[in-house]
Amino acid sequence: MSDDRTTLQDLKEKMAQFVHERDWEQFHTPKNLSMSIAIEAAELMEHFQWLTVEASKTLPLDALSDIGEELADIVIYSLSLANALQLDLTDTVLAKMAKNIRKYPSEKVRGKSHKYTHYLQDRESDGTER
Amino acid sequence: MSDDRTTLQDLKEKMAQFVHERDWEQFHTPKNLSMSIAIEAAELMEHFQWLTVEASKTLPLDALSDIGEELADIVIYSLSLANALQLDLTDTVLAKMAKNIRKYPSEKVRGKSHKYTHYLQDRESDGTER
Amino acid sequence: MSDDRTTLQDLKEKMAQFVHERDWEQFHTPKNLSMSIAIEAAELMEHFQWLTVEASKTLPLDALSDIGEELADIVIYSLSLANALQLDLTDTVLAKMAKNIRKYPSEKVRGKSHKYTHYLQDRESDGTER
Amino acid sequence: MSDDRTTLQDLKEKMAQFVHERDWEQFHTPKNLSMSIAIEAAELMEHFQWLTVEASKTLPLDALSDIGEELADIVIYSLSLANALQLDLTDTVLAKMAKNIRKYPSEKVRGKSHKYTHYLQDRESDGTER
Repeated sequence: MSDDRTTLQDLKEKMAQFVHERDWEQFHTPKNLSMSIAIEAAELMEHFQWLTVEASKTLPLDALSDIGEELADIVIYSLSLANALQLDLTDTVLAKMAKNIRKYPSEKVRGKSHKYTHYLQDRESDGTER
Repeated sequence: MSDDRTTLQDLKEKMAQFVHERDWEQFHTPKNLSMSIAIEAAELMEHFQWLTVEASKTLPLDALSDIGEELADIVIYSLSLANALQLDLTDTVLAKMAKNIRKYPSEKVRGKSHKYTHYLQDRESDGTER
Repeated sequence: MSDDRTTLQDLKEKMAQFVHERDWEQFHTPKNLSMSIAIEAAELMEHFQWLTVEASKTLPLDALSDIGEELADIVIYSLSLANALQLDLTDTVLAKMAKNIRKYPSEKVRGKSHKYTHYLQDRESDGTER
Repeated sequence: MSDDRTTLQDLKEKMAQFVHERDWEQFHTPKNLSMSIAIEAAELMEHFQWLTVEASKTLPLDALSDIGEELADIVIYSLSLANALQLDLTDTVLAKMAKNIRKYPSEKVRGKSHKYTHYLQDRESDGTER
């Protein structure tokens, strides 16, 4: 398989099967899964712990392989959490992206990493919404 | 859209477009993205901070909505990282799941949450691989 | 040494010496140290990943030793960050504790794990501050 | 108080008193405390999320105040965990620092951020321990 041929549902089903075959629903509760995602996220960060932001952009092949594994773990636990909460990941992701598009209109934020409140202030001060 | 009609590539492309329109590639470097995933993972955990594992299984609707947003953020940054590293998420996820299937054979682990080494010891002690 | 004979300054100085002898100030920047604390915090969480909250209260001796090491790492990086930012840890901790005492007055929160806003609403509704 | 006049025990006692007055021992279990430290560590990281490592070294005063608060929260939960596990923080910190001094001898690592294994290989290849 690969990304252009695989749906979110395909991956969610594989994960549900993996968990079910092992009778692991009892461990894959929301609290434990949230901890698991955070744990894997930290293992991912470890690869960049002492690098400058720039250096993190050019990584050797073997590091890339390990990094891919940590990212896979993050996605794997996220899939399990979506299953546990019966969430449609696509719908929640697209809804959040729509919210981000509103929060960070491209003409206002291009090239800058300001947080939402900065732009909210701009909106309030002159009354128009861009 | 929804999970059974959306491919990983669909979501990766939407994320790439969002980042590109804002000239945010400069901020969406691997180091920063790994921090971002960890930050969102912690915001997700906050919903379960003081709950028992059992209580985390029955959540009110408004909490479910917020939790969905945090999970969306985790997936959103994961998509951006996959783009930044030019990783096929499906391939990496399936490869890691195959590794987990080998590490945690269902007949050995059903119902138990032991780590890999426990089962490795079992393999070593009697010489056969199950 | 031990806790009743050791000041925060004693520990901060030992950490400063360790970092300086290795010419590691260049790596112990606030961004990297914040990542390091989060990484160690996740290694600590891993010990409790699949346990119920109750089970986490009774741990075997060897687990306790490993857990102590992760907690030590968290404190070690926190000391280095306090040095890097020239922060008096005692002052910041006591200031935050004073804020928490105000946010969570014991007569209101005893036995309950409500967040601040719940009590703020109580204050607003009857006008008095307890 | 301040760092040169305050012992670890002073802070642990204040924290124990705060928790006890609120009958919060039931929530301050090791699992929950480990999550809490990770949550606060992520709030700390958020201040540096999009900054370069260099930029994180020069922060405005109001940011410094918020950062101090997050660091205080990390230390506060660490104190509570030390109390819950009846750990002497000084002993565990000094033991881990001694281990780090052995792992990362200053003459070998000065100026470099290599991980332990690199130096272990050096030790193994020529048989002597430096």
